[in-house]
This record gives sequence, structure tokens and C-alpha cells, in this order.
Amino acid sequence: MKTFVLAPDSYKESLTAKEVCDAMEKGICKVYPDSKFIKVPMADGGEGTVQSLVDATKGVLKKVSVLGPKDEYVNARYGLLGDGTTAVIEMSEASGINLINKEERNPLLTHTYGTGQLIVHCIESGIKKIIIGIGGSATNDGGMGMAMALGVKFYNKDNKLLPLGGGYLDRLHRIDISEINPLLKNVEVIVACDVTNPLTGENGATVVYGPQKGATPEIVKRLELNLVHYANIIETQIGKSFKNEPGSGAAGGLGGGLLVFTNAKLEKGIDIVIKHTGLEDKIMKSDFVFTGEGKTDEQTLHGKTPYGVAKVALRYNKPIFAISGQLGSNLEKLYEVGFTGIFCILPKITMLDDAIANSKKNITNTCYNVAKILACKC
Amino acid sequence: MKTFVLAPDSYKESLTAKEVCDAMEKGICKVYPDSKFIKVPMADGGEGTVQSLVDATKGVLKKVSVLGPKDEYVNARYGLLGDGTTAVIEMSEASGINLINKEERNPLLTHTYGTGQLIVHCIESGIKKIIIGIGGSATNDGGMGMAMALGVKFYNKDNKLLPLGGGYLDRLHRIDISEINPLLKNVEVIVACDVTNPLTGENGATVVYGPQKGATPEIVKRLELNLVHYANIIETQIGKSFKNEPGSGAAGGLGGGLLVFTNAKLEKGIDIVIKHTGLEDKIMKSDFVFTGEGKTDEQTLHGKTPYGVAKVALRYNKPIFAISGQLGSNLEKLYEVGFTGIFCILPKITMLDDAIANSKKNITNTCYNVAKILACKC
Repeated sequence: MKTFVLAPDSYKESLTAKEVCDAMEKGICKVYPDSKFIKVPMADGGEGTVQSLVDATKGVLKKVSVLGPKDEYVNARYGLLGDGTTAVIEMSEASGINLINKEERNPLLTHTYGTGQLIVHCIESGIKKIIIGIGGSATNDGGMGMAMALGVKFYNKDNKLLPLGGGYLDRLHRIDISEINPLLKNVEVIVACDVTNPLTGENGATVVYGPQKGATPEIVKRLELNLVHYANIIETQIGKSFKNEPGSGAAGGLGGGLLVFTNAKLEKGIDIVIKHTGLEDKIMKSDFVFTGEGKTDEQTLHGKTPYGVAKVALRYNKPIFAISGQLGSNLEKLYEVGFTGIFCILPKITMLDDAIANSKKNITNTCYNVAKILACKC
Repeated sequence: MKTFVLAPDSYKESLTAKEVCDAMEKGICKVYPDSKFIKVPMADGGEGTVQSLVDATKGVLKKVSVLGPKDEYVNARYGLLGDGTTAVIEMSEASGINLINKEERNPLLTHTYGTGQLIVHCIESGIKKIIIGIGGSATNDGGMGMAMALGVKFYNKDNKLLPLGGGYLDRLHRIDISEINPLLKNVEVIVACDVTNPLTGENGATVVYGPQKGATPEIVKRLELNLVHYANIIETQIGKSFKNEPGSGAAGGLGGGLLVFTNAKLEKGIDIVIKHTGLEDKIMKSDFVFTGEGKTDEQTLHGKTPYGVAKVALRYNKPIFAISGQLGSNLEKLYEVGFTGIFCILPKITMLDDAIANSKKNITNTCYNVAKILACKC
């Protein structure tokens, strides 16, 4: 009896990771009907991470109403993992760029307050560990909004509370952390962060990511100065110097804000998912490992799921197959790191719509094919 | 050391079978560098058969000028196989529908004289065996033109020779075979024929294939009566009854004409190619067999190359892989007959032009992938 670990990412805009697992199983099962299938829906810390960890740990999805990035309330999903004490949240659910129409995006005004509310909601429900994915932010507020939700007070020189939004940080005069939520002390915060941008400077949050959030060159200049001022005040008054910390520039500085105001540490998204799904232990006891994603190419080596899964598989000398929606350039590099086979599921010339509509069937067929070769007595 | 037999068909409009072989070898070779590769470019008796048998036997391509189906001279290629005494001709090179513009197609006038000239050219060069592919004909003359080139005389009731073209067969009164080329006696003629249509009737040459050669319903009626008359005269004067013979209706009755006027036997195209490439012997001594074609689907089971190759491979319990440009419907049926794996080479959503431009590379990559699995120690 063979054991197969099925650990794909989702196929973006087509299938969840769990659906990919099921389609893979269906194909392999036809060749190895009596085998054991360990399905581990994966993600890399970005979109789909909540779903993946919920599926992998048999957790549940929850929803809570929080203040969105432009002051309209939004229903933000988060995941309560199977252990009952770990939550996974994605900042984009509360403060994401997808919550705002393109023409209304303005990082002077957007804020991370809702993300802070999500954190508060979790810790007040007894959560002891929060995993937070911070991709897709609409904000450039250095995490001030999030901190305000946690109970931190940001005053101007007239001792008035600052309004929400990265555009007001130039008026910051005094920070009071005395009323921060006391439960936070005992909560571990793991930030899924694959970028190493510092808070400020040429590679900082504003210069690199501001424009895609709607910042004009002029606004970029203002927000950059605002974050420098914000970091200086924090350094002086709280004693934490973080503006050059790698990752502090992630999500418009939310990365930095989490480092300052919570017990946060930054980890690579895929490493977090591997750890919380128990992938290594499962692979160790398996014979073959299947992974995959919507598109596999050179970029896969930069923190994407199939590479993370492959590294674990190769550590235990397991054959590792990628089954992907499409393949891109420079696959040689993936073979060099040790992939056994990298297959595209497409059976014919087709349009994207059609390919998406048939992706389950195509995954099943491709895995069936691969399994048939594995089973062939040579 | 492993031995691989690579026996694909051509990828229509993209690669010759030999090019497919080379691309396959390149991929497998990266995994099995010290292996033996037996490359057998295949065909199924249709387009590409000459090229395939020439390539497989290390023969040469020749060219000869003959009378085309509409009385314009054409350069017809044929193959002289490696044994030096077998020729492969395709009737479409001399009398094919592709030689005539669509608006000028008229099976009352088209004829197979050029195909006869090709046969004469071969036997006068000392050829002892002629393999003739008869797909793609423009004609409906029952092989009268071909027979005239061989020396058979067709007279009307005024003892005048008939003009060329199926439309004149109603005037046939007397056939004289006394001056037929005497070399023909010692020449074996193998007709590659996958259809079983009789010469006449509802399933006959004219009713089934006439319209696609430009015959209006009225012309179909005339030509059908002409072929019935032609067959009756042959039966009465030569003593050969052939109008219900399966295959006599192939190529507008050229199949029947060859049966009457030469030492012809009809065989399935793929069987002829398998025999003349020595495929069985090669597969017997191999470990793995790779085949493929431009598109693999249910139709593949009806005399197409991959199925023919698979039947031989399965007879000797060899794993058999199809590597194809595209896959179609009902592949289950191919798996049922015993294919080990059936892979599409496409790596991404693409247009046909692009797919064709990259087909060599895509074949190489897919074969590399398959070989990697074969090589993986399980």
C-alpha cells in the first residue's frame, strides 16, 4: 500500500486547494485504489491561506463586521483552526485594496483599523495565537489604525486624537500605549510576510507600494515623510527602532506596526503553512508527494507553495510532482532543485474560460497519467 | 541500459514523424543518457507515409513529372525505400484533390492517369514492390486513367479511345488489356486502404465521396451509373467481378482498378507501415515504447498510428506512452485497450500558431517529464 501526500496550492480564480486535492485523489485513486491519501490543502501566506489552514486542520470559518479601509463596515472572514486556540486572519479581508473601487483608492485616507478590530475580536474570544496574512493592503498608515483598535492613543500637539488614515501621521505628537488591550500580552502573533522592504526609504512601503494603492507622486512624498515622522516618534517615545527592519514596510507599514505594538514575529508565509498543517510529518510517512498551483514558473522558487512543499519532500527523498494549470519559463531551475516531474494539465488548445471550467477534470486526468507511470513495472 | 522505441506519427501541419522522434529522444536522453533510442518515424498509410517509410528505412525521396488530375503536369514525389526494390507512392501526389482549386473541382473530368505514370516509372526503374497510399483523391474514374497509363485500352462503340475522366465511362464498349506493361506481372502492389466502401451503391465511391470532390447531386447520379457500367464491362470482358469488393470504392474506384489491373492486395495502412519499418522486431527488444500524433482521441482507435503501435507494444507487454499535440474526447477507451499514459504537450493557454511553433520544445519537455517518472525509484 502506497501513501500519497497531496499538497497543492489553490488554482487562483479556479479551484480551492481542497478542490485540487480532491481532483488529484480521484485520478491517482483509479490506479492505486487501496492507497492512503493525505490531503493537505496548501497556501503560501497570501490569498487562500485562511481557507487552506481551516481545511487542513478541520477548523471553521468565522465572520465579523469591522470598519473597512474607507470607513464602510465590511464582513471580514477569519479562520479558527482545529486546535481551537489559533486564528488565521488576512488583513485584506478587513483593510484590503479589493474592498475599494479603483477610482476611490487614496492611501492618505485608508487605514488598518478593521484589522485591529479583527485582532481584538480574536483575543477576546480566547485565541492564544494569531497568524496574520498581510498581502493586498489598501493602506499606508504604518499600522496606526490597527494600533488604535488595540487601544493605543495617537494625539496631535493640541492633545486631540488623530483621525484615521496615513495622511494624518504628520500631525502625530504623542503616543499613549497605557490602555492597550491587556490580553495582547499573552498572544503570539505570527505575521506571514515574504517581503523584506523596510518601512521607509527608496525600498520602503510608500515608494514601492504606494503608487499601486492610488498614491500620486506628490502623495508618495507626503506619505513617506509621514512614516518617517511616525517612526521617529515611536523610537523616541516607545523606544523601538524599526524603520529599517526587513518586513516593516509590508502592507503599508502594518508589518512594522505589528512589530511595535504586538508580540509579533515575521515568518515566511509558506513556512507558517507548512508548520501549521503538519506537512513535514505527513510527508515523512509518505511514498509520493504531489503539489501544484495555477501557474508554475521561475517565480515558484520565490516562496511559492510548490517549492516549499518540494523542499520538505526532498529532505526525505520523496518523489515530488507538480501538477499545474499552466507552465512558464525557466522550468530547468525547478528541475535543478529536484522536482521529479512538472506537468501542465491542459489537454488541448483552449481559452482561459474553458480551461478554468475543466480544471478539475484535467487535474484528475493528469494525475491518473502520472500514477499510471508510477505503477508501471519497469 | 534501457532501450526506447520512438514510433510517433507526424504532427500534421507542424512536424514530420522524424522530427517528433528527435524531439522525444532529446527529452528522454536527459534522463537516460546511456540508453538506446530506436527511432521509427511512423504513418498510417495517409499523408506522410512516403516520408515515414523513407526515413525509417533510410531510403530516398524521388520526383517525377506526371499528368495531374486536370491535365496539367505536376511534380509527384515518391519514396525509394532502403532495400532499393520497394517504392512508396501516394496517389494524391499525382491525382490528389489538393492539386485543384476548390472551384475547379469536377470529377467528371479528373482522372488517375498520373498515378499510373508513377507506377510505370517505378516498374521501369526495376522496382519489385509498390506500396500505394490512396487517400485524398480528386477522381472518380474507377482507376481507368491509371490503367490507361499502364497500357490498357478503353474504346467506345466506334472503336475510338475514350478521353480521360470518370464522366466518359458511360461510353465504354470494349477493353483491351493485351498491351498492358509486361513488367507488371512480377510486381507486387500493396494498397494502403482503411476504408471498406464498395465501388458502387449507397456506400460506394460516388455517393459517399463524390460530393467532397465537387460532384453535384446530378453528377453523382451520372458517375454512379458510369461506374456500374464500367464494372459490368470489366466483369463481362475480363471476368473479374469486383464492384462489391470492400475497398474497391476507395479513391473514386482506384482501389477497384488496382485490384483488376495489377497484382494488388489491399491492406490497412498502419499494418503496412508497421511491417515495412520492422517495428515489431524493434519493439520486441525494447523496454519502453513512445508514440504520438497531432491529436489523440477516440478516432485514434480507427486505424491511426498510435493505436497500431500500441497493439504491437502490448503484445510484448511493453509500457506504451502517447505524447500528443492535443487530446480529445473519450480517452477512457484508449486506456481500456492498454495505453500506459496519454500526455498532451501543451504547457499553457496558447493559440494554435504558438503551439505549432513550440511543438518540438514541448514534446521534449513532456518526454523529459515522463522519463523522470520512469526513472524515479519507487
